[in-house]
Amino acid sequence: MDTLDVELGDRSYPIYIGDGLFTQKELLLDLLAGHQVLVVTNTTVSPLYLDKILAQLDGLNPRALELEDGEQYKTLDTVTRIFDALLEQRFSRNSTLIALGGGVIGDITGFAAACYQRGVNFIQIPTTLLAQVDSSVGGKTGVNHPLGKNMIGAFYQPKGVIIDISALTTLPDRELKAGIAEVIKYGLIDDSEFFEWIELNLDNILKRERKVLTHAIRRSCEIKAEIVAADEKEAGIRAILNFGHTFGHAIEAGCGYGVYLHGEAVSIGMCLAAELSCRLDYISLKQLHRIIALLERTGLPTTLPEQLSTNEYLKLMAVDKKNIDGEIRVIVLEQMGKAGLPVSIDTVLLKKTIQDYGVIRSNES
Amino acid sequence: MDTLDVELGDRSYPIYIGDGLFTQKELLLDLLAGHQVLVVTNTTVSPLYLDKILAQLDGLNPRALELEDGEQYKTLDTVTRIFDALLEQRFSRNSTLIALGGGVIGDITGFAAACYQRGVNFIQIPTTLLAQVDSSVGGKTGVNHPLGKNMIGAFYQPKGVIIDISALTTLPDRELKAGIAEVIKYGLIDDSEFFEWIELNLDNILKRERKVLTHAIRRSCEIKAEIVAADEKEAGIRAILNFGHTFGHAIEAGCGYGVYLHGEAVSIGMCLAAELSCRLDYISLKQLHRIIALLERTGLPTTLPEQLSTNEYLKLMAVDKKNIDGEIRVIVLEQMGKAGLPVSIDTVLLKKTIQDYGVIRSNES
Repeated sequence: MDTLDVELGDRSYPIYIGDGLFTQKELLLDLLAGHQVLVVTNTTVSPLYLDKILAQLDGLNPRALELEDGEQYKTLDTVTRIFDALLEQRFSRNSTLIALGGGVIGDITGFAAACYQRGVNFIQIPTTLLAQVDSSVGGKTGVNHPLGKNMIGAFYQPKGVIIDISALTTLPDRELKAGIAEVIKYGLIDDSEFFEWIELNLDNILKRERKVLTHAIRRSCEIKAEIVAADEKEAGIRAILNFGHTFGHAIEAGCGYGVYLHGEAVSIGMCLAAELSCRLDYISLKQLHRIIALLERTGLPTTLPEQLSTNEYLKLMAVDKKNIDGEIRVIVLEQMGKAGLPVSIDTVLLKKTIQDYGVIRSNES
Repeated sequence: MDTLDVELGDRSYPIYIGDGLFTQKELLLDLLAGHQVLVVTNTTVSPLYLDKILAQLDGLNPRALELEDGEQYKTLDTVTRIFDALLEQRFSRNSTLIALGGGVIGDITGFAAACYQRGVNFIQIPTTLLAQVDSSVGGKTGVNHPLGKNMIGAFYQPKGVIIDISALTTLPDRELKAGIAEVIKYGLIDDSEFFEWIELNLDNILKRERKVLTHAIRRSCEIKAEIVAADEKEAGIRAILNFGHTFGHAIEAGCGYGVYLHGEAVSIGMCLAAELSCRLDYISLKQLHRIIALLERTGLPTTLPEQLSTNEYLKLMAVDKKNIDGEIRVIVLEQMGKAGLPVSIDTVLLKKTIQDYGVIRSNES
């Protein structure tokens, strides 16, 4: 088992990464507060792993709540269902919420934990690759609003993150690939060697080779933990984790939450952000093609959904959290393996990038 | 103008107390972040003070949102209306929410500010005595749940609090009295001399004599600021601010939010908590009568609503935030002017106190 620490003073916490951690009782028990425990999961994950987790909590009379599966359920209404369950069962301020599932379950449960009685203990047990490498670490919690992704939420750190690699054996291929999008992101924004390592090892990642998967997860979590420790509330550098997300969130909100998986929308978003980086002369056309090629080899979408017009994209991007006083700001790559802070992008250039995306690429490649 | 500081490191903020502060433009402008401002108020306060506040924000194109007036609207649904307004108008992360109104408006707006894009700037402009002496200071924000008061919320500090004494000239008598309940609370829990001062000056407070009102507000804010600075997130001493609130919240939730004003429910709750303190031999029967007499002279309710049974009270008190693992915990007075930390109360004693309340008092007085 590997242990990484997210260094945040008195809110520091461990990330445990290993094979078979769901059955290591002490790991979980050490992270509890009080005796009241609610496990929040969804209808897909529940039949696979809920009993395993409840077995570790034997003797505590743990409760479980099963939500519908999908980004379209990441709403305030679903959070309200958690509050109802907690209050009906008279959960006190020193109880624990456990998020057992993917990014949606983690974000919703974390937000409920942040708000219930103004904050109770919570633990992340991510079961998808995307949640393991990204959303379970760093304390960003929240829900979507019809007008914008993750617009309602809180910075609220878990007490610990338990990543059991064996959970990935049951993960559908599409979900695995969506998670790889975020792994590739870490290479692009912070570590060009890691990007090269992914290029070399992609086939084994796709085959779910344990050793390779473990390295991909550990290195992703290391990069994320370091950035979060440096800038917990995104006053600066943390924004680079949003590479590809400005376009990605617009795609998710515009096409309807749940149509694209988050990682899929981020894949397309990274293509656009890389194209923009190329137009701004930060990366070469060759590097742009290399990025798109890796995403394509993974089996991720790299073309813009046609149902949205350029103006619709701009309108959706106008509510992004990185914007200031109405200006659209995007993360671009300053070079391979290094993203810069958000920069205001001229609307004409943004429009042109969206309109011509794919055209230039196919003409010049 | 008086300025008090709530000392919370990098989250410290000023409380300005004075006559005519609504027209002091710099005070408000200095507390803004960015150029986008939404003033949240209610239908009662709006015709009285909204224009005055908007006039200070001239040139910024400030927006306003008017909510219904009353505790029964302090819900997640109302918070959602604020999110809708912010997103429809594309408010960015560096915008400012201004809470213009009483405790309900302050609590709702503060919670919306805590959650919108994971936290934006907000300013408290309390217009009721209760909000001025209590709810606008200290960063407790949130909404009610049908099963419990303030069960959903966040600790989220404002950037500043602007208390204009002149706003109290339009405050209905009933609201004024409800605010005095919290003023009396500060005397009881932390300052017996202040309690005596209230006894001596109550008539002038009720007559809204400016000098006396100003002292009552300043001393209340001083006590609150000191306790909050010592224990922002209520790990210990801050809980004494909840004196009378365990019973009070049960009355509010049990009778239906909005039937009793918060200060009225706290008045009854303080009588019960004082009775309990007397039964536990912390204060004398004479002191108990003195407390009840002051609340009665103020014109506040001091008898338990008959519509709730003893068991209903116990059931409602069982969801209080101070409880641990299902045990009901109450703040009692260790002596006049000094409250202790929450103590577990034996259910039999609690039942007896509720059942016999009033009986013993009228027999023995």
